[in-house]
Amino acid sequence: MKSNFLINTLFPLICIIIIISSSIKGSFSLRPAIKNYQNFNNNNNNNYADNYTPIPANFSIKWYDQKLDHFNYVETQRFKQRYIVSTDHWCDGCPIFFYAGNEGDIFMFANNTGFMWENARRFRAMVLFAEHRYYGKSIPFGKLDRNLQHLGYLTTEQALADFAELLEFINDTEPKAANSPVVTFGGSYGGMLAAWFRMKYPHLTVGALAASAPILQFPGIYDCNGYFDIVSKDFKDYSVNCYESIRKSWPAVRRLLDTVDGRKWLSKTFVMCKPLEETQKEDFVSWLSNTWESLAMIDYPNPASFLQPLPAYPIREVCKLLTDPTKTDRLLLEDIYRGASIYYNYTGKTKCNDISLQAQDLGTDAWNFQACTEMVLPVCANGQTDMFWDRPWNLTEFSDGCRKTYGVPSDKEKAIILFGGKHIGAATNIIFSQGSRDPWSVGGVLKTVAPSLPAILIPNACHHEDLRSEGPNDPPELKAARNQEIQIIGDWIKQHYRQIDPNLYRQWVHNFNGDLVTDI
Amino acid sequence: MKSNFLINTLFPLICIIIIISSSIKGSFSLRPAIKNYQNFNNNNNNNYADNYTPIPANFSIKWYDQKLDHFNYVETQRFKQRYIVSTDHWCDGCPIFFYAGNEGDIFMFANNTGFMWENARRFRAMVLFAEHRYYGKSIPFGKLDRNLQHLGYLTTEQALADFAELLEFINDTEPKAANSPVVTFGGSYGGMLAAWFRMKYPHLTVGALAASAPILQFPGIYDCNGYFDIVSKDFKDYSVNCYESIRKSWPAVRRLLDTVDGRKWLSKTFVMCKPLEETQKEDFVSWLSNTWESLAMIDYPNPASFLQPLPAYPIREVCKLLTDPTKTDRLLLEDIYRGASIYYNYTGKTKCNDISLQAQDLGTDAWNFQACTEMVLPVCANGQTDMFWDRPWNLTEFSDGCRKTYGVPSDKEKAIILFGGKHIGAATNIIFSQGSRDPWSVGGVLKTVAPSLPAILIPNACHHEDLRSEGPNDPPELKAARNQEIQIIGDWIKQHYRQIDPNLYRQWVHNFNGDLVTDI
Repeated sequence: MKSNFLINTLFPLICIIIIISSSIKGSFSLRPAIKNYQNFNNNNNNNYADNYTPIPANFSIKWYDQKLDHFNYVETQRFKQRYIVSTDHWCDGCPIFFYAGNEGDIFMFANNTGFMWENARRFRAMVLFAEHRYYGKSIPFGKLDRNLQHLGYLTTEQALADFAELLEFINDTEPKAANSPVVTFGGSYGGMLAAWFRMKYPHLTVGALAASAPILQFPGIYDCNGYFDIVSKDFKDYSVNCYESIRKSWPAVRRLLDTVDGRKWLSKTFVMCKPLEETQKEDFVSWLSNTWESLAMIDYPNPASFLQPLPAYPIREVCKLLTDPTKTDRLLLEDIYRGASIYYNYTGKTKCNDISLQAQDLGTDAWNFQACTEMVLPVCANGQTDMFWDRPWNLTEFSDGCRKTYGVPSDKEKAIILFGGKHIGAATNIIFSQGSRDPWSVGGVLKTVAPSLPAILIPNACHHEDLRSEGPNDPPELKAARNQEIQIIGDWIKQHYRQIDPNLYRQWVHNFNGDLVTDI
Repeated sequence: MKSNFLINTLFPLICIIIIISSSIKGSFSLRPAIKNYQNFNNNNNNNYADNYTPIPANFSIKWYDQKLDHFNYVETQRFKQRYIVSTDHWCDGCPIFFYAGNEGDIFMFANNTGFMWENARRFRAMVLFAEHRYYGKSIPFGKLDRNLQHLGYLTTEQALADFAELLEFINDTEPKAANSPVVTFGGSYGGMLAAWFRMKYPHLTVGALAASAPILQFPGIYDCNGYFDIVSKDFKDYSVNCYESIRKSWPAVRRLLDTVDGRKWLSKTFVMCKPLEETQKEDFVSWLSNTWESLAMIDYPNPASFLQPLPAYPIREVCKLLTDPTKTDRLLLEDIYRGASIYYNYTGKTKCNDISLQAQDLGTDAWNFQACTEMVLPVCANGQTDMFWDRPWNLTEFSDGCRKTYGVPSDKEKAIILFGGKHIGAATNIIFSQGSRDPWSVGGVLKTVAPSLPAILIPNACHHEDLRSEGPNDPPELKAARNQEIQIIGDWIKQHYRQIDPNLYRQWVHNFNGDLVTDI
């Protein structure tokens, strides 16, 4: 079965599938189907430009002249790193809330991390979002391309060093920041960065809230199982018929993809922008699979526009449409199309679906490159315990694909050597929060390994749901988790002030407990 | 006074002065007098080749195919990193004693770190000494040169990553190492590396003994004072006349250096290999100054051959010869020569002294480059509280000199951003040991900042004296310090075994307390 060759590296926050198979002719092996949300919201042409902002505060967009390479003296070029800063609530010596930007435009994270904005007032915090190198507008060499001489500086260590340099720059140039504790936040890969930043630069941050950070999902310590089980369960919990409908759709889709007439029918039924080619069979299957995976990450209780504009609990809406798995192929797939449209076209503005658009876009190479080199996060399905099919994950094939595409094989041990894998017990002051319905929780730290490394498992929550703004439908477990996080973060800050100045400490405790911190 | 322009960056373990002034013509400013012990023992032609070994165990010399650059995918070359490994006492799952090699041939450290060898039996430890990149025989690009394209990969972060890769390699290839705790050792810059290795890679080492590691001696947190005070006190404590003789020698030397006849007399009296040139005035002064600085580091209680073959308490021997500071210039300097000869020619085999030899040797560039870029360790004298002269330290001049020599200015904030300067409170399991008579203790961690970061100040000890072999003259304070270190290291190891397996733990405690660890 050709699907056996499909190697998936899925990315936490990704909505749109990228298949870079076109460059390989005459091969049955599909290239890694690497997903990326750099071009999220492509369907509704909302690219979160600087002018688009639901950020509930005044803010400035700034640029830091960042080192391209922090670790040698051979490469001395610099690039402009973008960051967002808001000081509406900030006072002398008050905390800095720092978001460790991940693989996308920094406004996407600024717009979807309401937790930081909403707590900035109580904490009197400066809010700072740093864009990750090679994403958004922080692109070295002016534009992205696959030239290893350009792309080769895209590594997590460099990104962490960027954050360190930027924070040091702010400390050097902003006298009011001299006593300010920095609390680091991040979700998904950003959560991994937040955790690792606290591990590697604990002198620069008092603690990190690492939300939905799959830091344990690396080859050698994690096989690949579990992710698709949770995706599937998220659907099954709404309706077994929904789950079964999706499960049965794969052979139906493949039967249709195998014939000219079938592809024609699928192109029309799924409103494809371009007719499906025979070479796009696996692309189409992955595109469809990714729909359900993405929904499982963002089945939030409130309407949201994170990856796509969606209603509250979008899977519930999907499952209202997938009620009869016994239907014949075409009738079943018509239901599937309607279900997928909840994701792709909830606004009704999407004119057609284009699965090949992104494959041509070199902009997606940034995450693909990271997923190929250091951020190798295996996932696999078996078609037995999940609603997908037998999708093994093979490191050798994966690595070969990376070598062919980027000229480097997978650096599969890198993250473990650098960050320790499971052996994180020497770290302190990191909250690892997980949503129980988040597929990526399989790679997260689910157990508290030390008192200062609390794991917070949020029942029924999805991908870094705690970082989102409060909403009217928030379940009590989510509210409780956020409150717990606020208390722990408050404790880190108290500890910081206590160490540098007892007066600052007393002032902080007094104000924080009074739900308002005045100038300290 | 021209000496005002002398900018010194002194290096912890250095015996031979390097003055790289010859390349600057028509300037009154001497270039940084950077010292290096890479070519230690030059005078007696003992270069600690592979065949020379007082190592009290069987050992192998091995080579690891190391990454040239760990932090980008642009540079993919590798180089051969040398390491020494001894398994005489090692058993399955038993500890690994790892020395974080510093700026010199790894045999120099293997030969002078008897503490590790002597305790290997009790701990049943594998002993592992890793050579630092760009030193000894671990030279990328085959040979050292000043080409920034070659030298630019010489950074502490790369060196630490080398250690991480090497340990991971040993863990991957040696099944008996699966449960082995790694204890990291280092002295001087090696001590800095040991401490930082535990900070950055705590998953790879259970703790570090950082002996005489001046991790606080960086611009911004340390001015430059104190180093020469301790050097001076080390002499004054033996004899005030000795101290005064050296103090008065500087103007005497300068008076002689200023005339043709005086230089001729100095060349003859100090048995220079080549007559002193007028351009070498500051070189000669620095060479002489360095003699006393080096002696202050290694005024060990037992005869030693660390930097030079020396008797027990060599300063005592020097001071026996410097008894009358009221002598006239030439008579005083004849005494000074005899005193310096304790250092340069205790064996009587040195035919002449050559201060220019090293300046021509590009091999010295490795440490000079590190001292210029990241390892900026300022020292200064004032001629009032010390036996030297007014020797200010100026970062701008220093940095300019670095730029002219290597094409890069000083990266003066780098070490602080990377390692935190004084803010090391998040680290654990690092012993910071200092000798009270060691000039470099001014940059060390002298106070215990957290229970798991004990500072051990060893009264009357010199530079990383605790790492040396036991000797018949060891003072009780030194013995006590070593015993304390052994207990703490034992505790780290116990903690490690307790975490991974209660049986291993019980076995370890039983054996360790019985002064013999059997197979665990």
